[in-house]
Amino acid sequence: MNLSQKAIGIFDSGVGGLTVVKQVFEKLPFENVIYFGDTARTPYGPRSPEIVRKFSVQDISFLSTQGVKLIVVACNTASAVALDYLKKIFQLPLMGVIVPGSKAAVKATKNGRIGVIGTAGTIRSESYTKAIQKIDKNIKVFSYPCPLFVSLAEESYINKKATYLIAEEYLATLKKKKIDTLVLGCTHYPLLKNVIVKVMGKKITLIDSAEETAIEVKKILERYDLVKTSRFSYSHKYYVSDFPEKFIQIGERFLGERIKVVKKIDINKY
Amino acid sequence: MNLSQKAIGIFDSGVGGLTVVKQVFEKLPFENVIYFGDTARTPYGPRSPEIVRKFSVQDISFLSTQGVKLIVVACNTASAVALDYLKKIFQLPLMGVIVPGSKAAVKATKNGRIGVIGTAGTIRSESYTKAIQKIDKNIKVFSYPCPLFVSLAEESYINKKATYLIAEEYLATLKKKKIDTLVLGCTHYPLLKNVIVKVMGKKITLIDSAEETAIEVKKILERYDLVKTSRFSYSHKYYVSDFPEKFIQIGERFLGERIKVVKKIDINKY
Repeated sequence: MNLSQKAIGIFDSGVGGLTVVKQVFEKLPFENVIYFGDTARTPYGPRSPEIVRKFSVQDISFLSTQGVKLIVVACNTASAVALDYLKKIFQLPLMGVIVPGSKAAVKATKNGRIGVIGTAGTIRSESYTKAIQKIDKNIKVFSYPCPLFVSLAEESYINKKATYLIAEEYLATLKKKKIDTLVLGCTHYPLLKNVIVKVMGKKITLIDSAEETAIEVKKILERYDLVKTSRFSYSHKYYVSDFPEKFIQIGERFLGERIKVVKKIDINKY
Repeated sequence: MNLSQKAIGIFDSGVGGLTVVKQVFEKLPFENVIYFGDTARTPYGPRSPEIVRKFSVQDISFLSTQGVKLIVVACNTASAVALDYLKKIFQLPLMGVIVPGSKAAVKATKNGRIGVIGTAGTIRSESYTKAIQKIDKNIKVFSYPCPLFVSLAEESYINKKATYLIAEEYLATLKKKKIDTLVLGCTHYPLLKNVIVKVMGKKITLIDSAEETAIEVKKILERYDLVKTSRFSYSHKYYVSDFPEKFIQIGERFLGERIKVVKKIDINKY
């Protein structure tokens, strides 16, 4: 098979990575996607770097068996704590969501003050700070973990006063830092966009790593002449490690379109 | 070794089961406890019954290798969806938290109207309803899932207005049902006791399955003459599948005392 005909592999700890899939569909309308959501072990955010690396190796091992041309680590936590490690192990082209998000934030900021929110694991790793300051070391980065945002998004507990109060408290420190750009450093957070805008004000530019990642995927495929350019044999596949029914139910909200078939696999075999 | 000298094995999806350990320490002050918290795959509440069964088999297989005289499934979700299945597989005496909690609720209710709150998995299984109505089929049981309570407890997000608002919304339906007894059907919920009392009113009797389970453990050990009656070789062991540091930090709040050593094991070997 022509390499460009192969699918793009995308994985996340659960449904969150579907926000990246959605953007890939928009930017690369002929590409096939094979998605894996590790729903048996979601979330990765509160776990140790060691176990996130171990789980990510299994996730990529599974996707590798599916014949993909590129793999996107769509989970911010895995991108933050495991990507460098994974690149040493696997030959396949791998990319994460931290660098695209960081590049976009650097482009967007006018006053050189960027905020980053994410899971405890992502923020603890300081990956966004390092990636941003690698591009421009004069930029000031202020980061803050928002652990409850993941459950609030997963439970669709969004247009609620409680959610607004939690966001107010989490973002209070960042509000004082005079940032003009805020990176949503977790694939779940775009679902809380309205709440975050309400708290931070409309003047702040929000960076959704999902969109920037899809743009980066497009660039890489173009560079290596690997873009699929026709609708020939167009199909997407979704795999999970647990509870396909729930994945469909929550996932359609993240993806913004219907998910027809989701297959369950035993991730411990990989 | 004399069988009564052996430890009691207790497992949970994470730290929550330490509320059971705490009660065992109070009711059975000479017993040794070997605890396993599956922190690499916590929480079990939102997962499918199949995967909760699979994980529980591994958890018990590990504890079995540690020479225990009895195993307590301290996780409500695992007790609800896996206990019958586990009893068929393992020879060791096994007990869960649903039946003790149900017995206590039946004893406590005066008007025959009991409320139950728990994870999505526990409530969906209707295990409490079945266990309560097996004792007295005339009792009316009203149950309601409170999925965000687990993250709120884990993140210590407790004395907050947002938490109170979430509790108000979750418990609104139950408040109308004229219940006089409410089962806290998740090991995390005792941490939110104050919030729940504030919403439900002081007249409602709260049933903490943890305490009732410890009472039941004592009864079983007494019946089979297996109570450890001296402080000879007194020691407890804690094992987790990920992040021992975090387990200590959060766990001490659940246990109400210091945890000195926690060992990490690879649960996929069992």
